[in-house]
This record gives sequence, C-alpha cells and structure tokens, in this order.
Amino acid sequence: MPGLSQWPGEFEIIRRFFSAQRVVDADTEIGIGDDCAILNFATAARLALTTDTLVAGVHFFSDTDPARLGHKALAVNLSDLAAMGARPRWTLLALTLPENDPEWITAFARGFFRLAERYGVQLIGGDTTRGPLAVTVHALGTIDEGPAVKRSGAQAGDAVYVSGSIGLAGLGLKIRQGAYLVPDEEALDRLEAPEPRTAFGLRLGEFASAAIDVSDGLVADLGHILEQSSVGAEVDWEVLPLSSAVCRYVADSGDWEMPLVAGDDYELCFTASPAYAHAIALAADATATPVRRIGTIRAGSGLIIRRYGRSVELPYSGYVHFSPGDTRR
Amino acid sequence: MPGLSQWPGEFEIIRRFFSAQRVVDADTEIGIGDDCAILNFATAARLALTTDTLVAGVHFFSDTDPARLGHKALAVNLSDLAAMGARPRWTLLALTLPENDPEWITAFARGFFRLAERYGVQLIGGDTTRGPLAVTVHALGTIDEGPAVKRSGAQAGDAVYVSGSIGLAGLGLKIRQGAYLVPDEEALDRLEAPEPRTAFGLRLGEFASAAIDVSDGLVADLGHILEQSSVGAEVDWEVLPLSSAVCRYVADSGDWEMPLVAGDDYELCFTASPAYAHAIALAADATATPVRRIGTIRAGSGLIIRRYGRSVELPYSGYVHFSPGDTRR
Repeated sequence: MPGLSQWPGEFEIIRRFFSAQRVVDADTEIGIGDDCAILNFATAARLALTTDTLVAGVHFFSDTDPARLGHKALAVNLSDLAAMGARPRWTLLALTLPENDPEWITAFARGFFRLAERYGVQLIGGDTTRGPLAVTVHALGTIDEGPAVKRSGAQAGDAVYVSGSIGLAGLGLKIRQGAYLVPDEEALDRLEAPEPRTAFGLRLGEFASAAIDVSDGLVADLGHILEQSSVGAEVDWEVLPLSSAVCRYVADSGDWEMPLVAGDDYELCFTASPAYAHAIALAADATATPVRRIGTIRAGSGLIIRRYGRSVELPYSGYVHFSPGDTRR
Repeated sequence: MPGLSQWPGEFEIIRRFFSAQRVVDADTEIGIGDDCAILNFATAARLALTTDTLVAGVHFFSDTDPARLGHKALAVNLSDLAAMGARPRWTLLALTLPENDPEWITAFARGFFRLAERYGVQLIGGDTTRGPLAVTVHALGTIDEGPAVKRSGAQAGDAVYVSGSIGLAGLGLKIRQGAYLVPDEEALDRLEAPEPRTAFGLRLGEFASAAIDVSDGLVADLGHILEQSSVGAEVDWEVLPLSSAVCRYVADSGDWEMPLVAGDDYELCFTASPAYAHAIALAADATATPVRRIGTIRAGSGLIIRRYGRSVELPYSGYVHFSPGDTRR
C-alpha cells in the first residue's frame, strides 16, 4: 500500500478519519500503515471477499455529493457480502482522484466511515493515486456457520423473493438526468446512498436456496440465479414491491419494464422452498426488512413476467452501467 | 462482483483464462462467479492483504504492452506481500477499460495469469467496468508462522540491506520518455515487468527486523522504515547495487541521486541485526537473490548518504508517481 505515503495530503485525511474510527476488529493484527494489513484468525474461519469499482461519469455523476459517494462505494460492496450471508468486517479503499481537494476528500471520508462504523467495518488498507475520479472498494466478511448462500442453488418449486422495493434507483437516475420531472427524495437517496441489506442477509442461510443482490436490475440478477441454477422462473408484475413514486412513474410513462431492468437498487433477491415462508416472515420482522414473494422457480429456463393475464419473456440482458446520457441498453 | 456479468465480452475473456488457470487453492471454497468469493480455513490462519492501483498516464504509458501491464498490476501487489514475508495465494482484479478491445484484454489476461500461475496465485474475483484505463489489483497471502515483518522494527546498529539492484526502473522511465538515449532492455523490463521478490520475502521472517518494498524509491521507502521505527540511518553510496547501465547513466548525467529517489524497482529493503549476516547470505543463495548491505541504522532520525567522503542528508520525499512528462518532484 505505497499510496499511504505517495499522497500524503489525501491519505493523511483518510488516516485522520481512520485514527478516529471506533471500529477495531479483534482479528486485525495490523491495520493501515504497513505494506500489507494482517488478519489473524485463531481458529477456523470462512471469509467472503468482493470488490467493486465506481467510475465518475459511468457509475455516478462527477458532481455527486462526495459524502454520498463515499457511502455508496462501501455500500455496494456490503451488499455483495449480504447476498452471501456474510458479516461485514474489513475494507480496503483504492481511491483515484484528479486533484488534491481536501474539502472533497474530507466529505468522502466522512460518508465512507460513517457507514463503516454503523456496520462495524474496519478500514485496514488502501491506495490513493492521481487520475480520473474512481473508487475501488474491497470488502471482506466472515460466514459464521452453514453453507454460503450461492447463486446456484435454486430449485423448481422454490418461491422467489425480493427485499424492500425495486425501481427506486432507476427512478432517481431519470430524475437526476432530467428525464422525469417529478422530484422524489427517496428515489435520489436510493440512487446515491443505497442501504445494504446486511441484517437480513445474515439470516439468508436459514432458508435461502440461492441469493443475489440487485445491482444490475431484477431481470439481469434473477437471470444469474436462473442460469447458474439451470432453472427458469415466473414473476408476477402485479406483486412487485414498488414505491408510490415508482408506480406514478410507470403510470405516467407506460414504461412498466423500468422497475424490472433498472439497476442500482441493492435489494436482495433470493429463492427458498415454500416450506420456509414462516421463517422468512420472522426474519423479515426481526430485521425490520420488507420482504415480498414475487414469483416461483420453474423447471426449464427463461424468465416469464406475468402482467394482467399476459405473459412476456424478458431477456436477461437487463441493465448496463449508465453514463449520464445513456441509461440502459 | 456484478462485473462478471455487466461486461460479458471482457470478463468472458478473463473467465476463459480463469477456467484454464491451473491454480486451484485448497482453501478456496468459491472462486469467480458469485457475489463474493469464499475462502475456508479449517484451522488458524493469518492473512496478509494489500491493494494497488495503476492508472494510465500516471503509473504507465497508455500504449504499454498489455501483457506487461497485466504482469505488472499483479507484480506490484505480490511485492507488497513479499515485503511482509507472506506467501501469495489469491487475487481479485478490478479492471476499468475505455473500450471493448478483445485483443488488448486477451494480452492483458495472458500477462496477468502467467505471473499468477508462476506463483501459485488463484484469481477468485473481479469487476470489469467501462471508463478511463486503470487496474486495481487486490492480493492476499498467508503467513505461515512467526511475526509478520513490519516497517517499525528497525533498531540502532541493525544493518540495512537491499535486494537486486536499484535505479533500473528509473532508468527505464528516462529511456521511455526519451530523456536518455542509450537503450537498455533490462531497464525497460524492470519498468514494465518487475519481478516480485517472493522467494526471498518468504525468508525475511528468519532475520529481518523491518522490511518494505522499494516502490517509491529507496530514500522514500527506507524513510518509512526510519519514521515508523523512530531511528535514522547512514547509507553508503559507493556500495549501492547498480547495474552497469545505471552506473553509465550516472556517469553521463551526473545525476547520482536518481538510483536513490526513482521508484518502481520493487526490490526489498530490510534491516537486520549484524548477527544475521550469515543467515541472510544463506537465504540469498538459496533463493538466488542478490542481496547487498548498504548501510547501518543509527539512533536519532534522518537519512545520511555518504558519498566519496562527504555526507548528505536527503529528505524522505523521494519519488512521486510519474506522469509521462513529469518524472519526480
């Protein structure tokens, strides 16, 4: 991690936040400040690892509130950990910045560390370099017991669930682009500062046969489960959990596919045997997480959307990273 | 790791190489293809983690041979692991590409996987996104026994060593920039495809009181050891290990500071009690690694360079990432 020294100004600011961070994981032997961080597990351990990059002009607008960007860069990684049923523990931050702007980096670090602290995640390393604005976060978690929740375990007859509501980030993007003129704070919040479903994710191992987080859009992400599980699915459009703003957008525009194909919601989509319906309701209650059954896994392949008595098969292609003028394929 | 799906073209190529990679670590429960990778340690384990970003136009020329770039992006991370005495095991690759160029990505993957295979490193995850060319690699290793070799353990009286030779990458950069007109393949190789000192790094725990890899330049990196150990050092210019091409450059230009301040050599600099001189010579022989004593740790602070009977104190600032027209501060 030479970046700790190469950019004294920037990393000094992160280091200041780091020094103030209250999270010190018991298994961290060495944190920031050496060539590597060291984690020391005294007994058996199972680690979940993920990495995600956000690039200015591709994943976010360059003028995005830096505190929200710091939040989101970590949140999208915590979301991947949640989808495997892992407990978030550590993170590394590789930050590429076009210029030395202490105010910007201070706000970024505040957003990043506020979320990290809320979930007990310790920053143990990083790299800060000069270049076009981009953030790559690496997150690590542990899986306490039982199998990890993979994408490949869905079986015919399983119910398909999604947490929270979908299409909100897609609506936020349309508002941010000026393509939809009804403002909605909740939609902008979802786009710029999504909340990982960490608490519910930790319960997935109790009932889920497969799970994924909704980053590329429900169709694309459920499509990964279907492909990797060699099954198909039917989803009922009428029961999709949509906020009233998203419903209004669909009514205004007729664009009923948006909630299915827009990305960046960071909800959890999972499958489970119908026998677990009660366990799922209990876990949803216990973690204050809205969870809705939206369909059923079928033998075969393909994703059928049922809508007002008609069935439409949607390709899995779904969402592609937006650039500020180009929302989806 | 949504990138596995978002950029089917690019990641399909990496996945093809991944499928062909012969490295399957026994502790890998899930590799590429789910939300997270899972590592499963049946007994106690100590993990070393590091991350480094290379940005086009900042850390490398945009027209760099992509196979060499793939090699270097992994090598600089393996170098950090070597400096902690860790055994490289796993890597994650976050690749940001301006366009879909199968030929480029094929060459990049070839260079990356060739090095990974040579050191038994398994790619277990990644993210591929569109944007200005940049590579962030995350590497993980294990430390078998004994304490990790930190930067903070140097003591007055310890000898200062460096592996291989220094200034070669700095010379390569000058040649590449057209600032020095005597071509030297070895210097270009060091700049574009440095070799991590992995085998010797695994021996560091036997004798080193502190260690760091030389990425920012000897003065800057030894400076980190001195600052973190609260000591000073004297280094003898006359015994610095310099290739004949670097000697010739110094003779031609009079720029004797270059080998001390130029970065990117990825050699190991370490300190050890003089009592370990024989053990160090044995480890150097056993791993075919040239190792040279270049100075001594002193009480106090500051780095003195002794050169032909004169002493010069150099500030630790050293090397700053080059941009193609701007080699150092």
